[in-house]
Formats: sequence, C-alpha cells, structure tokens
Amino acid sequence: MTEQPKPGDGPVPYIVVGRPLPGVISAVPGLELVLSLNAGIEHLLASGEVPGHLPIVRLVDDGLAEGMSEWVLAQALAWHRNLLIYKDLQEKREWAPQPEKLARERTVAILGAGALGGQVAEHFVRFGFKTRSWSRSGRPIEGAQSFAGREKLLDAVRGADILVNLLPMTAETANVVDANVLAALAKGAFFINGARGGHVVDADLIAALDDGHISGAALDVFRIEPLPTEDPLWGHPKVLLSPHVAAPTHAHAAVAEMAENIRRFERGEKLPHIVDRTLGY
Amino acid sequence: MTEQPKPGDGPVPYIVVGRPLPGVISAVPGLELVLSLNAGIEHLLASGEVPGHLPIVRLVDDGLAEGMSEWVLAQALAWHRNLLIYKDLQEKREWAPQPEKLARERTVAILGAGALGGQVAEHFVRFGFKTRSWSRSGRPIEGAQSFAGREKLLDAVRGADILVNLLPMTAETANVVDANVLAALAKGAFFINGARGGHVVDADLIAALDDGHISGAALDVFRIEPLPTEDPLWGHPKVLLSPHVAAPTHAHAAVAEMAENIRRFERGEKLPHIVDRTLGY
Repeated sequence: MTEQPKPGDGPVPYIVVGRPLPGVISAVPGLELVLSLNAGIEHLLASGEVPGHLPIVRLVDDGLAEGMSEWVLAQALAWHRNLLIYKDLQEKREWAPQPEKLARERTVAILGAGALGGQVAEHFVRFGFKTRSWSRSGRPIEGAQSFAGREKLLDAVRGADILVNLLPMTAETANVVDANVLAALAKGAFFINGARGGHVVDADLIAALDDGHISGAALDVFRIEPLPTEDPLWGHPKVLLSPHVAAPTHAHAAVAEMAENIRRFERGEKLPHIVDRTLGY
Repeated sequence: MTEQPKPGDGPVPYIVVGRPLPGVISAVPGLELVLSLNAGIEHLLASGEVPGHLPIVRLVDDGLAEGMSEWVLAQALAWHRNLLIYKDLQEKREWAPQPEKLARERTVAILGAGALGGQVAEHFVRFGFKTRSWSRSGRPIEGAQSFAGREKLLDAVRGADILVNLLPMTAETANVVDANVLAALAKGAFFINGARGGHVVDADLIAALDDGHISGAALDVFRIEPLPTEDPLWGHPKVLLSPHVAAPTHAHAAVAEMAENIRRFERGEKLPHIVDRTLGY
C-alpha cells in the first residue's frame, strides 16, 4: 500500500509571484500552488509560465477591497461635491455656490461585482446613490440594481452620472469602456477606472472628454505603467491621474491572507479566489 | 364653558424665517410657532426677535444630514488618499506613488453627535476609520468611541488624524477649536469645519497650518459670509475653502419636513429639533 502524498509535501510546494522571470516557475521542484501577489493575474496566464495543472490563487486581502473602496469613493464624492471647482474659484477669491445635488439624485454604474466592485457598491448604496452593478453573473448586491452579461451592458450604464470600472482583465473585458458605453452615460458624467488600462479605449475616452459629454475621468491604471511622459492623458485638463495607488498591497494583510491560503490548501479546503482559467480570473 | 383654543387656531399661527428683519416677528398676530429655515438658529436667539414664549423649531431635514455627510466624507477621503498631492504631481508628469494608509490606520474625531455628527460618524465607522465622537451629552454611536463634556475634549481629539467640527453654535461652543485642541491632534492632521466659523480661532488655525502641525483645512463656514476678499484664508496654500455649500437646504425635503412639523404641532405631539433656549440649540 503506497501512501498518498499530502498537500504541501513537495520539496518546494509554494511560490509567491508578482511577474516572475521566464523559466523560474518551471524550475521549482515539486511546486503545488502558485500564490499571486496581485488580485489581477492576467499577465500570469498570458505569459504561459504557469503549467496548466498548477492552481493559481489571487491575492484578495481585506486591505485590497478597503483601499479600493476608499479611493473610488474619494474620487466619486470629490467630483459629486465639486471640490476641484471650488478650488479654482478660491484661487480667484470668488464666493460662488454651485448647484449641489444629493447623492440620492445621482446614478452610479459599477462594472464588476467581485470582492472590489461589491464592497464599493455597498458604500455607494449607503450614501444613497442610485446604484447599479454589472457583471458576468449579475451577482446581487443589496440595495443595488444588478445587470448580467454583455447584452445588458448598455442598459446598466445608460444615463449614469458616475461610471466605475472594477472588472477583472480578461479577453472578454478588454476595451469594454468604449465610445458606445461612454455615449450611453448621462451628459457630464464622470468616469473612474481602478481596474486596468486595457479596459478602456483611450482614444474614445479622450474624444468624449473633449466633446464635453464626459466631464472628467479619474484614472489610476494605464496600458503602459509608469505612463510614458509623452502620453496625452498626463496633460489633459479633465483627467485626474494617479500612479496605480488605488489599492496598494499592504504587507501585513497580504502575508496573513497568503498564510491562511496555505493552511486551507494543506487541510484540503476550497481556496477562495482560485483562478478559473476558462474565465481568466 | 369656554373652549380651549386648538394649536394652529391663531390668525397667523406659523412663520417660516431665515434672518427676519427687526420687528417682523412681533408684528405677526397670533403667532404660535417659529419654523427656522436653518439647522443653526443662534442668530435668532441672539437677535432677541423671538419672544420667549414662542417655540422655535430647527430645520433638520433628511437632506441636510445627507448633504453634510457627503461633503465631510468627500473632504476627508480626498485628503486621506492624497488626491491633491497627485494632482500636483500630474502637473509635473511625475509618476510618484505616495505612502498610502488604510482608513483603519487613521483616527477621526468628530465634534458634535447630533443629527449631522451622528450620521457622519456612522459613515467613518463603515469605512473602518477609528472614530471618536465628542458632544455635551456623549450620545453613543455604534462603532465609535464617545466622549462627553468639556473636560473630555482634549482626550477626544488627542492624536486624531482628522478633526471634524459639526457642533451647534452656542456660548459654550464658541472658539472651541483653538490652539490647545489643534496642538493635541496628530502631527500633519487635517481639519474639516462644516458647522460655524465662530467655532474656530482663525489665528490659532493659521498658526498651526503655518508651523506644519496641521497639514490642511477644509472650511465651509466663516465668521463673516461671504468671506471678505481680503481675508488671509482665501489665499492660504493649505486651506480649501468653499462658500457654505456643505449642506444646502433642498427645497423639497425642507418643505416636507416643515409641513410634518406643523401637523405634529396641531396634533399636540412633541416636535423633534425644538430649540432648548437654555442649551442654545
């Protein structure tokens, strides 16, 4: 009777990776589980560096969703309450109240209803925003209106005052924020991207900003990072740009989450946020 | 048997006032109830225009607390997530991630635990901020630490990263935000005033900003409004100034609340937000 090897028995059963150099993963003996340092893992799948039999687990620690929620709500509320408009008026010493709306008079559409999109949607609901959530599966979020599948995308965003992108990066979600989606938003809408630069057709976004249909955009992610100095987004007067800081990895929370994932793996339990390669996230 | 007059039977039983001209209120025949257009009514008491026997009811509609919550959280999150720092870096085309903290790593102290302070505190709690609430009575707020009375003021603010003022304006709360309170905050703290200009000793605030102990202040209210063009707050590089727009009165919600107060009065019910003249709010 041969004994079954137990999970974690290999010589080097676990590897923690960000963007591993070519050949590193296949050179590790007895690897059983790949622990990503990121929530987005499209680069790991695209590189073909992780053999098909090896499970990959995304890093989705509590701090990630918290940081993203804080950043998205900071951008949304700052736009909603005209903070930068008042900053410009202050420079001119002009006491000039603007028309102010309540959150309940605005509609927010959030693309993505996972760990990030779900928590962000809950915050919008608590402020009273009319909140819509769009995802592949249409996962319900209390207080929000849920939309499922590509054919409902335009319904989900139509007339929204704020559009938030928190989708995973997959073949299906590439370029999802295009001229059609932007045109469906309310006149003067604001766009917030906390997910990936590849979700957005930059030329369509710039055109919508320039023709005034979109009043502004807060972008934390770009197709090339750091964003090249010559990129027109840097100098666009309606773009607020930050250097991929919306949801930084917090070491303490990340290590705790990875250790817990290893314990789950060794007890033979199901790992949350294990990558489904057919879905790409 | 003489019949008791019923509430609302006078020739002109109700008056809705903002800042009434001298003599107007005493000229109204049969007045029974004064409905303020504002939540803060210190000017009505100070003017002596409302005879002592007349009840005054403050306007505290749903929209008021909602608008204030949105504005305070917009200011707090924008500072917390370095939005203006990234805006400056963008102008220089510098990709420079700053050290980012999670809300749970910051402490917020809120002065005032009424309709406004209470709702604002709840939003901070939901984001995970360590939240402290200070008020005369120490009204408890779920998830926050409550402090009661003047002798606990410095304990409530000590080491806080964000200080929010939402107190009523009374003789006891005038000048409450002074050099002592500011010095007790954490180095680099941020101050948000959504209540009244008279709560703050401006010279102490400017000194704390200039010496770097306070990193910034978002001020929506001032001792004189509109703020005179020559006031140094306009041009201070660490001050974000807005023209008393944090919680504007929304006509629909205000009228509904005043109508409901008249119905309560005519049914002989207790009115919420009736002014206690000994407390001054």
